[in-house]
Amino acid sequence: MPKQIVQTEFYTIDKKIKFESGVEFGPVTVAYETYGRLNEAKDNAILVVHALTGDAHAAGYHNENDKKPGWWDDLIGSGKAFDTDKYYVISTNILGGCSGTTGPSSINPETGKPYGLSFPVFTIEDTVKVQKELLNYLGIETLYAVAGGSMGGMQAMQFVISYPDMVKSAILIATTSRLSPQGIAFNAVGRNSIISDPNWNNGEYYDKSNKPDRGLSNARMIGHITYLCEEAMYNKFGRKLQDKDHYDFNFDVDFQVESYLQHQGQIFVDRFDANSYLYITKAVDYFDPASKYGSLQNAFKKSDAKYLIISFDSDWLFPSSQSKEIVNTLMNLGKDVSYCEIKSPCGHDAFLLEYDVQSKIIKSFLNDHITESCNE
Amino acid sequence: MPKQIVQTEFYTIDKKIKFESGVEFGPVTVAYETYGRLNEAKDNAILVVHALTGDAHAAGYHNENDKKPGWWDDLIGSGKAFDTDKYYVISTNILGGCSGTTGPSSINPETGKPYGLSFPVFTIEDTVKVQKELLNYLGIETLYAVAGGSMGGMQAMQFVISYPDMVKSAILIATTSRLSPQGIAFNAVGRNSIISDPNWNNGEYYDKSNKPDRGLSNARMIGHITYLCEEAMYNKFGRKLQDKDHYDFNFDVDFQVESYLQHQGQIFVDRFDANSYLYITKAVDYFDPASKYGSLQNAFKKSDAKYLIISFDSDWLFPSSQSKEIVNTLMNLGKDVSYCEIKSPCGHDAFLLEYDVQSKIIKSFLNDHITESCNE
Repeated sequence: MPKQIVQTEFYTIDKKIKFESGVEFGPVTVAYETYGRLNEAKDNAILVVHALTGDAHAAGYHNENDKKPGWWDDLIGSGKAFDTDKYYVISTNILGGCSGTTGPSSINPETGKPYGLSFPVFTIEDTVKVQKELLNYLGIETLYAVAGGSMGGMQAMQFVISYPDMVKSAILIATTSRLSPQGIAFNAVGRNSIISDPNWNNGEYYDKSNKPDRGLSNARMIGHITYLCEEAMYNKFGRKLQDKDHYDFNFDVDFQVESYLQHQGQIFVDRFDANSYLYITKAVDYFDPASKYGSLQNAFKKSDAKYLIISFDSDWLFPSSQSKEIVNTLMNLGKDVSYCEIKSPCGHDAFLLEYDVQSKIIKSFLNDHITESCNE
Repeated sequence: MPKQIVQTEFYTIDKKIKFESGVEFGPVTVAYETYGRLNEAKDNAILVVHALTGDAHAAGYHNENDKKPGWWDDLIGSGKAFDTDKYYVISTNILGGCSGTTGPSSINPETGKPYGLSFPVFTIEDTVKVQKELLNYLGIETLYAVAGGSMGGMQAMQFVISYPDMVKSAILIATTSRLSPQGIAFNAVGRNSIISDPNWNNGEYYDKSNKPDRGLSNARMIGHITYLCEEAMYNKFGRKLQDKDHYDFNFDVDFQVESYLQHQGQIFVDRFDANSYLYITKAVDYFDPASKYGSLQNAFKKSDAKYLIISFDSDWLFPSSQSKEIVNTLMNLGKDVSYCEIKSPCGHDAFLLEYDVQSKIIKSFLNDHITESCNE
């Protein structure tokens, strides 16, 4: 099959947006990609929203030489779960990101310099506001579905909460309605790692030759530990040594797991901005609709969307218990909810790995069938 | 009851010790404390060995004004589990530490400067060799027991393995015979955090005004997350904000859990040496008697010690499954083993918190009774 070539497009919201903090901010440019076609009734649009460090490039290839497709290419395309023969799929880079949408590394038109820390702290609600503006521009008034994993699930949830009449269904994968204190702790240490790096320089490093790579890399390493589970780490690395038979008795890398994490840290700094990491993890920490709306029930009550909620039994960052809390809330509200806990040895990362089961469940859900069994 | 005043003593091993790496190293000074009296038969000695960042000060107070007693004071003293009316308890600071025993921050007598990274990388086996030299000096040929939690448990295990004829019983608490890849990963990120701090300066910072405090503090914060469990974090902090009712919308501390971790990091740098942290975590990573002796069974087979093994159900750093592996190995060897999994919401930290149950079990074990029930 020939590679599906896609390109990232950009839309600039030509007005100020009022953030949850009270700050009015603009202009915001949104990077987005679309797959499939909007039908005449304009009722086949699906918004997919990415996780912490994702981008708008969810499916297809940017050119023939591209080695890797978009991050959810296994789920988005002709005949796939998000079937582009049927649906018009839109994917955007998050507000505050560093892959095309306006963020702290973008140039502030008023100063001609990157925003850095003058970029306002935003929330998941603000990120969804930006996506809504893009949908307005694209002429989309209803979403057949909004779908995302991890932080993407938070955005999908918030979309339903912010625009209850607009969304027909929501797919919330490996997510939570509020990060646990342990999750906050990991994010805090990651941010601390960046802020402690002298090259971070209070967020002003864009014109410097030395960037806060070490701090950002460390933050990524911490993150990666939480994306895997112990079983995944045993399966992947065990206590195997890296390119050696005996300990080195020095402070170089001894174990494969160390080498893996260092590699993940190193490649991350080439594609991600340290300030974006600060802002986006803060938005994740702040997300807590139960607190904001008095209860989770209150937050969800206005919408008649139907829900598919998926969690993974080995995910200890966003454990199944947190998905079940959402499920129970929605059930108590009498909403239409399907829930699947998928058995997987992959930890939180499973939402980017376990495509066979997810495809089946999502396809069936979008086709309006009841999901019969989730662990086949 | 008046405060029991104790003092740290020092013994210098006046010869070179052959480390597992092959390096011969010396002199090594050992900081130690003793509680109780050695009986005439010299058969009532108990060696207690500390965890990652502990010191020789396991019980009592150093002076009348001391606010906090030694780290295991709840278990060591007159009438306590390690009853100093009966037993002669010895506690030492670990080789490579920074609380009196020779480590990377100690002065190399040959250069007149701190060792820094010229200090040889050592193993748990080496730390135990140093303790054995101290026991020789104290005239102790048999140990009624060797006991420790976490890394202390590793040392206790290694003591039995290295000196099988010397130990009558071993108490292994919240420990493992080999760190999981996840544990290695956390240690590696902690070390990376120190090494990434420019003030670390390749380990040469002792004469500088700026020390690698930020890196060390970050490493400690990572460690602390792993010492608590999710339930403990919920109980302790939940998502409660620190001294505020609303989010700050900046990168200061918002949540109590952040504040707690930062505080833990800050107080740690006042009492601990960054290089010691590197060396000791490396020794923990390297500990793997099953690999060294062909199997865990082989490692333990020469000793006729009896064992008490305690784990905590909420400890995810050194989970019960790892204790059970040791228990099963010892059972298969026909050894005398008591095992207790204590229910606790405190995570790995439980071995420094759950004293009621531990006291009872340890007392009963040391009194040579079979432990009847561990969860009362």
